[in-house]
Amino acid sequence: MSAPLSATDQDWAAAVLAGDRRALARLITRIESTRADHRIEAEALLDHLLPHTGRSVRVGISGVPGVGKSTFIESFGLSLIKRGHRVAVLAVDPSSRRTGGSILGDKTRMAELSRDERAFIRPSPSGGTLGGVARRTAEAILAVEAGGYDVVIVETVGVGQSETAVADMVDLFCLLLLPAGGDDLQGIKKGVVELADMIVVNKADGDLAAAAGRTAADYHNALGLLRPATPLWRPPVLRASALEGKGLDEVWQTIERYRTIMIDAGLWAERRAEQALGRMWAEIGDALMTRLRDAPAIARDLPQIEISVRDGQLTPAAAARRMIGLFLTGAAA
Amino acid sequence: MSAPLSATDQDWAAAVLAGDRRALARLITRIESTRADHRIEAEALLDHLLPHTGRSVRVGISGVPGVGKSTFIESFGLSLIKRGHRVAVLAVDPSSRRTGGSILGDKTRMAELSRDERAFIRPSPSGGTLGGVARRTAEAILAVEAGGYDVVIVETVGVGQSETAVADMVDLFCLLLLPAGGDDLQGIKKGVVELADMIVVNKADGDLAAAAGRTAADYHNALGLLRPATPLWRPPVLRASALEGKGLDEVWQTIERYRTIMIDAGLWAERRAEQALGRMWAEIGDALMTRLRDAPAIARDLPQIEISVRDGQLTPAAAARRMIGLFLTGAAA
Repeated sequence: MSAPLSATDQDWAAAVLAGDRRALARLITRIESTRADHRIEAEALLDHLLPHTGRSVRVGISGVPGVGKSTFIESFGLSLIKRGHRVAVLAVDPSSRRTGGSILGDKTRMAELSRDERAFIRPSPSGGTLGGVARRTAEAILAVEAGGYDVVIVETVGVGQSETAVADMVDLFCLLLLPAGGDDLQGIKKGVVELADMIVVNKADGDLAAAAGRTAADYHNALGLLRPATPLWRPPVLRASALEGKGLDEVWQTIERYRTIMIDAGLWAERRAEQALGRMWAEIGDALMTRLRDAPAIARDLPQIEISVRDGQLTPAAAARRMIGLFLTGAAA
Repeated sequence: MSAPLSATDQDWAAAVLAGDRRALARLITRIESTRADHRIEAEALLDHLLPHTGRSVRVGISGVPGVGKSTFIESFGLSLIKRGHRVAVLAVDPSSRRTGGSILGDKTRMAELSRDERAFIRPSPSGGTLGGVARRTAEAILAVEAGGYDVVIVETVGVGQSETAVADMVDLFCLLLLPAGGDDLQGIKKGVVELADMIVVNKADGDLAAAAGRTAADYHNALGLLRPATPLWRPPVLRASALEGKGLDEVWQTIERYRTIMIDAGLWAERRAEQALGRMWAEIGDALMTRLRDAPAIARDLPQIEISVRDGQLTPAAAARRMIGLFLTGAAA
């Protein structure tokens, strides 16, 4: 579909497919680059790798700071490796900066998992808009799948709209909770519980075991009031202790059960298809706006048009019509 | 800036400026039309009227069903008319249909106000996306301002994202509350309280007077924890009884105080300028996507491209790049 790969890029793609972790890391760096030539190269590489993608289980994991997300992902990842899986951990954190974001900036957070050859941990792309970070992470999922990882965990923090972005790129969205009170007390944004395909009350150990039971029961009742995304799956509420390694098997069994039910109903592929289409339209919107802003005629007239709109001398609609005219005429040149 | 008006349209605009209510109603109907020639005519008319707009106070009023919104707006509107104002009432309700939406579909809801020559009540544009409804309402604000109305009330229901859309087109966003419990009990969506420049606890009368006092105190405390949009204005919490006509003068005095403070700080014009720019960019985005979807080359290839993306044979990014190529090449033809 796309331009043929250069010989170097063919070698690169082959190395990724052979499980070369350095080649994979370089590919994701290319995917994350904002340089136009890098974008084109990354797209060509992904296009080439596409037949080798899509065979993983994509699991989103969200939870507010303090819920024990890193410990959970490390314990869960290690338990999956023991079962013979290869596990990639990606992250969506639009707040992260070059210096390292609030999540996954430091691999030492998951020291044991990150040392394992069968795990691949990648911090969130640094900076940029949520849309940009999400697009790059969605492409990184394809990359790690081509690299042979069959469980992809996408981590996000419980701040703002990143949960929706992650739910839109995974097969199953899992919300981690603390064994304590309701959404408000836990700092969970409204709407996030509704995104969850599964809830896990973490830290269900020691003194908190009883509280975890109550929280699980409360959320079980609360979810009973919500309309599930499909009548085939009412999001279950599990308890786990990442610290003691308890409940992790049940989490994985639940994910497998979910996969079986969704595949049987044709909804597994359907969700991915809808996600891909949604990303295509979002990408078109973003790219068109970037092209418009960069068009010479727009760059020339925009400052004056913006002043006229700000001052109320030109309606937003009339200004929009003029800008689109300038853009589409210029696009022809 | 735009094409010169036809003689008929010049008469039409003159009639609107002279306060002719039928001419104004017809103009808003034109603004709400989705026909391309109507859009162009509406834009030209608005462009012509633009120097005569912007002199009103634009007040957004939101509240869940049951809060007494119509009664409040009617009482408040009548009190403003007594003070010598001319009051227009518009609405944003994306759920409204041709048969009449959930708000303002029936003028009899504000029977006394709607009979007054100094009031102009217009139901929400029917159907369409929230973005479309919001754009048309923002233009209707300009129209009623040209018609001489100096207080414009934009009503919205407390469902979904229409509050944000309304807050983005008014000078002051007022949230009506019931004298009862917190957000959850009242069914207020998260984030709506944060939009409010002013809160009014309605139904502060009879048996509910004490409860209204408690609710007002609770929200006063809660707002103390939120960061205000500007340090110059901490959203006040008032009590009113639309039924008994109590507290309405204080509501208006608060609005006037807000206006004075914002104008003195240069923030009144700044908020409107930012709103207009935001609408321009939203309009550009919407219009470009419509043009793209309508382009012949896209209409021809889109079905196949969508199938390829859905089936995972083409990355969303590569598909987006191809669609944009088709569109911009076609736009030149």
